[in-house]
Amino acid sequence: DEYKKPEVITEVPGPETKKLLKETDAIQNTGAVSLFCDFEKSKINYLVDADGNKLLDCFQQISSLPLGYNHPAILEQSLQSAAIMASRPALAYFPSKDFPRLIKNSLLRAAPSGLDQVVTMACGSCANENAYKSLFFWYMRNQRGEELPVMGDEAFISCMKNQPPGSPKLSILSFDGGFHGRTLGALSTTHSKPIHKLDVPAFDWPTAPFPKLKYPLEDHEKENAQEEARCLAVVEDLIEQWKDTRPVAGMVIEPIQAEGGDNHASDDFFRKLRNIATKNKIGFICDEVQTGMAITGRMWAHDYWGLETPPDIVTFAKKMLSGGFYYSDDFRWKHGYRVVNTWMGEPIKLVLLEKVLDIVKEQDLVFQAENTGHYVVNGLRQLEKMFPELLSAIRGRGMFIAADITEAGKRETFVKKLLQKGVLLGVCGDHSIRLRPSLFFTPAHADILLDKVEETAREM
Amino acid sequence: DEYKKPEVITEVPGPETKKLLKETDAIQNTGAVSLFCDFEKSKINYLVDADGNKLLDCFQQISSLPLGYNHPAILEQSLQSAAIMASRPALAYFPSKDFPRLIKNSLLRAAPSGLDQVVTMACGSCANENAYKSLFFWYMRNQRGEELPVMGDEAFISCMKNQPPGSPKLSILSFDGGFHGRTLGALSTTHSKPIHKLDVPAFDWPTAPFPKLKYPLEDHEKENAQEEARCLAVVEDLIEQWKDTRPVAGMVIEPIQAEGGDNHASDDFFRKLRNIATKNKIGFICDEVQTGMAITGRMWAHDYWGLETPPDIVTFAKKMLSGGFYYSDDFRWKHGYRVVNTWMGEPIKLVLLEKVLDIVKEQDLVFQAENTGHYVVNGLRQLEKMFPELLSAIRGRGMFIAADITEAGKRETFVKKLLQKGVLLGVCGDHSIRLRPSLFFTPAHADILLDKVEETAREM
Ligand code: FES
Repeated sequence: DEYKKPEVITEVPGPETKKLLKETDAIQNTGAVSLFCDFEKSKINYLVDADGNKLLDCFQQISSLPLGYNHPAILEQSLQSAAIMASRPALAYFPSKDFPRLIKNSLLRAAPSGLDQVVTMACGSCANENAYKSLFFWYMRNQRGEELPVMGDEAFISCMKNQPPGSPKLSILSFDGGFHGRTLGALSTTHSKPIHKLDVPAFDWPTAPFPKLKYPLEDHEKENAQEEARCLAVVEDLIEQWKDTRPVAGMVIEPIQAEGGDNHASDDFFRKLRNIATKNKIGFICDEVQTGMAITGRMWAHDYWGLETPPDIVTFAKKMLSGGFYYSDDFRWKHGYRVVNTWMGEPIKLVLLEKVLDIVKEQDLVFQAENTGHYVVNGLRQLEKMFPELLSAIRGRGMFIAADITEAGKRETFVKKLLQKGVLLGVCGDHSIRLRPSLFFTPAHADILLDKVEETAREM
Repeated sequence: DEYKKPEVITEVPGPETKKLLKETDAIQNTGAVSLFCDFEKSKINYLVDADGNKLLDCFQQISSLPLGYNHPAILEQSLQSAAIMASRPALAYFPSKDFPRLIKNSLLRAAPSGLDQVVTMACGSCANENAYKSLFFWYMRNQRGEELPVMGDEAFISCMKNQPPGSPKLSILSFDGGFHGRTLGALSTTHSKPIHKLDVPAFDWPTAPFPKLKYPLEDHEKENAQEEARCLAVVEDLIEQWKDTRPVAGMVIEPIQAEGGDNHASDDFFRKLRNIATKNKIGFICDEVQTGMAITGRMWAHDYWGLETPPDIVTFAKKMLSGGFYYSDDFRWKHGYRVVNTWMGEPIKLVLLEKVLDIVKEQDLVFQAENTGHYVVNGLRQLEKMFPELLSAIRGRGMFIAADITEAGKRETFVKKLLQKGVLLGVCGDHSIRLRPSLFFTPAHADILLDKVEETAREM
């Protein structure tokens, strides 16, 4: 890093940020704005804000910068590939002659085991929306056979009016606390916070409970296993109950529920869930938009599970730079124009991803995430012992780490105080804080983080 | 242009394209692929394919390149702004300190009259999806007042389960033949082709007929007015009929239905539609994803209408480079986190858009689109007289032009033959061809196009 430690020179947010906030507020609601950034001055783990404050950024644009700010190799690659920006293709119709090579050197190198098909999308929401569509196509193909209905068929006519049989009454089963995006289909499987959903029409689809576990997981195996068994039983019940009204065509799950509060479940839970899907002939979508790309200490978080059958579909975005999804041969759609839109993502993202994957491999950043993760979790657990009224439920895989702020209502104060000391964290769920740092976050950065957390805890 | 005329040296698609197609087919369905492109060699109106064929491109990546391929000013701007690519922000949370200035110099300069709020999105589908959400927020605010329900309120609890009252049973009224995107919400308002909709669950929302007019519009005013009156009456009926089941919160309409077949309606029709929305206190969304940005001979196609009250929301994408939507003050959401996602579009697109707007203004490209459009329509009408069994229903505004291929089943042959002569067109609806050229398309290009159409017509 060019910067060695955080340096805060104004109140945060500072006067410049406040001025910019006012300007922006004339154009749109700014309720979600945290800070205005000086991206030119920001370096890897350090975000410099509009007021010149240097912040150790453990959130990294909602976990979407794998190598942090202005990594020289990424800057160089952007510069060399600038022309690719200027002629953005309609990728499913007129791809560049480099496209097959580009996919091979980027997305396919990172493909989850067992999935050799991939399609690009422009964000995590359309990754999930189109994953759902692919799943519906697959489900209906299993009912009907490979041939599409012919023109004039009832299915063809009815779908144009949003009515069955052409628009079938099928559902996707999702989980309380899950987050899969905010477009209307994805939002129907999102159950993070009321403010995300209120006033928006939703599909009447089933929601299963996600296990509410005690942390650390290893100290509560028995009761956690009971809780997981309870949730699995509900999943099976729901599949059965919905058979006659809106059959469940598949389920979607995050390996760690991120927005919903960094909720973990055991590998065994996910294996059993996968088996329930297989047994019921429904699809199994693993949403790795936030967990994907090395941060959990594996390239994909579901690599931990030891599945016998891989997920049918794995969706991605954020740190992968491009949205999209991997899928098995069986889930490949058989006709053109089924999963397309104008842009279908963007080749420049794959060019950058190629470089990211080089660096992740050369510098063994998957291992570093796992390793640093252990260091941070241990450090936080020590602080938990010192400040049990402040910190609890430390949990994480690799650097995908969260903790609860024990005392209700104290989270916002804690995060604000920490920010004033130069450390930027994310929040999730109702009372959790989360770390989503770059893959260059090391024990040295962790020491700064832990020191500042301790300082803050003493002040609270 | 660097190239003066099309030059075809192989069969199209050629051997190299066929080879690449096969490679790509190992990774994903390639049913929609037309050609593989050599973007480096492509210049403004000329697309060079992987086999070295130089094609006069009248389709421009589904109408998404305003200035064609590799415009020097855009190349230069891409190069100078490459660093902006490297640190993509979570735009609603951590915008760059340049953000308010950037929005002012790009999107706000192009703002439709009466709309001074704008939000960026990454594509046309999420532009529409989030426009619908804003409309639902506005509608429910009108029912409930500005305050959100409090925690523990039934609305808050029920929305987490996708149930009313929190997830209200509201609808968006859309039109037969309309196209607004392919994510599940947008797709519920899309009625272009069965292949776009079949097998995907849809919201049970009302669909109104879109006028089926006779062209040229000026020769059939009376019967067209009757047809429009019929459709308007159905719209009013539907709003009434759905009041008790799924009240219509708003309607969405394209100024020219593009994917559905380049279907036009009169300015009077749209004015009346707008008035119906106002009268019924429902929202009016104008989807200018394809019609926006100068190609119709106005910056926005709805500028032709002479509305008393502007649309409530105008959505955009494609030639605007960024997705997003403009909206009136009244439609601004009052609470944070209502319309957000991780990326919210991308600043680099606004940087490029700023340059595009400079050039559009300096070179008066809005006027050029109108002007060249007249030239092309006149030319096509002459060909229509010579080949009535081939061409009919020539229609257009500016360079947003289409024609029907009169004889059923002949369209694909026509388009293929024309491509072999070096002219690339788009198709839409069941039997139409469409022009969506760059804004640098001039009468000189039109002459090439018209010559090749004539040549092809003689061969059919
Ligand atoms: S829905 Fe993903 S980019 Fe628009």
